[in-house]
Amino acid sequence: MANREPPSDGPLTGLRVLEIGHFIAAPFCTRVLGDMGADIIKIEPPTGDPIRTWGHHRDGHSPWWSQHARNKRCITLNLKHEKARELVVDLAGQCDAVVENFRPGQLERMGLGPDVLRRNRPDLVIANVSGYGQDGPYRDRASFGVIGEAIGGIRYLTGYPPGVTDLPPVRVGVSIGDSIAGLYAAFGVMAALWQRDRSGGDRRARTLDVALTDAVFSMTEGMLPEYSVFDVVKQPAGSGIETAAPTNAYPTADGKWILVAANSDPLFARLSKTMGRPELVDNPDFTGNQARVKNRKALDDMIGAWTATMTAVEADRVLSEADIPCCQVYTVADCAADPQYRHRGMVQEVPDPHFGSVLQTGIVPIVPEDPGRIRWPGPEIGAHTEEVLTSLLGMTGNDVSALRAAGVI
Amino acid sequence: MANREPPSDGPLTGLRVLEIGHFIAAPFCTRVLGDMGADIIKIEPPTGDPIRTWGHHRDGHSPWWSQHARNKRCITLNLKHEKARELVVDLAGQCDAVVENFRPGQLERMGLGPDVLRRNRPDLVIANVSGYGQDGPYRDRASFGVIGEAIGGIRYLTGYPPGVTDLPPVRVGVSIGDSIAGLYAAFGVMAALWQRDRSGGDRRARTLDVALTDAVFSMTEGMLPEYSVFDVVKQPAGSGIETAAPTNAYPTADGKWILVAANSDPLFARLSKTMGRPELVDNPDFTGNQARVKNRKALDDMIGAWTATMTAVEADRVLSEADIPCCQVYTVADCAADPQYRHRGMVQEVPDPHFGSVLQTGIVPIVPEDPGRIRWPGPEIGAHTEEVLTSLLGMTGNDVSALRAAGVI
Repeated sequence: MANREPPSDGPLTGLRVLEIGHFIAAPFCTRVLGDMGADIIKIEPPTGDPIRTWGHHRDGHSPWWSQHARNKRCITLNLKHEKARELVVDLAGQCDAVVENFRPGQLERMGLGPDVLRRNRPDLVIANVSGYGQDGPYRDRASFGVIGEAIGGIRYLTGYPPGVTDLPPVRVGVSIGDSIAGLYAAFGVMAALWQRDRSGGDRRARTLDVALTDAVFSMTEGMLPEYSVFDVVKQPAGSGIETAAPTNAYPTADGKWILVAANSDPLFARLSKTMGRPELVDNPDFTGNQARVKNRKALDDMIGAWTATMTAVEADRVLSEADIPCCQVYTVADCAADPQYRHRGMVQEVPDPHFGSVLQTGIVPIVPEDPGRIRWPGPEIGAHTEEVLTSLLGMTGNDVSALRAAGVI
Repeated sequence: MANREPPSDGPLTGLRVLEIGHFIAAPFCTRVLGDMGADIIKIEPPTGDPIRTWGHHRDGHSPWWSQHARNKRCITLNLKHEKARELVVDLAGQCDAVVENFRPGQLERMGLGPDVLRRNRPDLVIANVSGYGQDGPYRDRASFGVIGEAIGGIRYLTGYPPGVTDLPPVRVGVSIGDSIAGLYAAFGVMAALWQRDRSGGDRRARTLDVALTDAVFSMTEGMLPEYSVFDVVKQPAGSGIETAAPTNAYPTADGKWILVAANSDPLFARLSKTMGRPELVDNPDFTGNQARVKNRKALDDMIGAWTATMTAVEADRVLSEADIPCCQVYTVADCAADPQYRHRGMVQEVPDPHFGSVLQTGIVPIVPEDPGRIRWPGPEIGAHTEEVLTSLLGMTGNDVSALRAAGVI
């Protein structure tokens, strides 16, 4: 049987999504959708999304943008113009879903509330991403990068137990709350679309209200249930795990860290032998997880003194050969060179007009039968304005020129 | 128009998913699907999923389980029996998707490879969740909780810059890599099902290969692109942000922390005034973000001395009234009492047979027109075995008794 299907860019080929987003959360949502093959139309003000110059950049271009806006068609619209807002409604009419991350109520105030967006597409799915959510007493509070972590309950945990250090708990280092919220929005969009579009589906519009705080809080394992039943307030455990030993980050000779998890009896026996200290197994101080947890400090010092005699790569090899769960703590340089990431296309060299080429993280999940792909890097401001307005809204080149002259696009 | 539709449990009402999972990642995936209304059938060995007793527990029951396995139908199957493996295939034939997180290749070795699982359902979507992925040089490496963070590149960042402390970088405190991978799997399942099931869809099976490492690495913002272009290895920034000041965690009188982000000129002016130090604005040491970053230490000390005169709640109020982005660093006790979470149903009291009631995190995302709900808490081992086998596979009570006697279930 010859394959006569049109070429696929992944499972979401045929889906079209309008992004009225900026910074991280909503654009991460549409990146994930676009990576799976969806046609993403991103609306930017004529000045562009600030991420275009965030982080390290050159001549107004950030490599981050190359990855963050890949696979999207970027158009400019100056939403202060009524005509621009009409174009948003017209475009929404050609899309399956809209994803936005303005402050709650901001789109309504601009005359782009859900009823307006659905004027030409009553079954439009709308995803609203915000810091605290679309309702409730905190909905109007200023949202900023770290609130997801802090209010979601994980910032308290990314520190050391009291008495170890006076330093405050650390940031995760990336705005993980934004990305998690964006991923929840992408999941929600697909859940709503499945019910709307499937054979026998209900053809109904749905709205998704995703808060950064809720998104992070939902990932705190048994923390809330345990608190409610046992009155236990989960405490930071630094680099280890409160209830298991040995499992920690240990220093290596090259100034790096190696994680070792040898907290079962057979694993600890193997580790003791590998360290050349087989007698530890018979030492009552280290027999059973409970004893090891109690004497964690002595154990960690011993293991750390041993790992410090090797480079991280050596320690990784020696421990792996003994079948002891371990891994290095990767810097981005380690990630970039990692053979597993290269093998799986999780580090990809992508041609980019500003930098020649840029390494980008690959596409998650991998779909062997129908893989998504990086079709193009983050585009110039307004690169697709004319293409989108003519192909989707039936405008002529002259119409577009007139809009440009009027400052609408 | 009267509403004559059958009752809905959310957008995924009508979807059925088989979970052959354990621990965190695959079960988190199906929790998210179940929260949106899907019928989840979870297969456990007769000894049960270890999470049943993980963390704080009583009489073999953990409150975590109450949340982790909510909305699922739990059945037991002893997969060492050939008959049990046949029942897996029969059940897969009644499902839209299968989600699993054995070590790569393990299901094949048990005679439950993808071709077998699809015998009665050729369009079955299969999600494989694992530490390093289903292929590549590391696929058989031992996977454990923290590898997602460490190999994904965020563990290196959850620490302090060199010179500040010798302590190793901290764990996020929950196995965030597992949950992120589970959420990616849920998204991937819905992407595959949308293309399969939509009007005009292709009715094709798809496989999703989700690695914890890939999942976390995909959330590292511009870290890899920046490294490839500028040779910059992103460094830990402790509790602040390398390129902006003041933005940090500051101590309060009650031993807590408050996050303050006043790193723009207008915000810093407001903060100076609020601290009763309006003269700071005209001090060249603190004029402009660049100067403030350079003199970050002096600035942070000053702000910290000021916040330390108030409780976290007071500091939050004073700063919020001045419209300066801030938030407290919540413990789980703060999360449980938070009015925003209560308002949005993100802290819900759920009846539980073992504990009377348990607080659980709510459902993300919120879908106002068609909300998911917590239908029941994590069930007993095998609670739904008979119900599932009789209703889905047409067995009689006697058939089930015979299977039980033979040790199959």
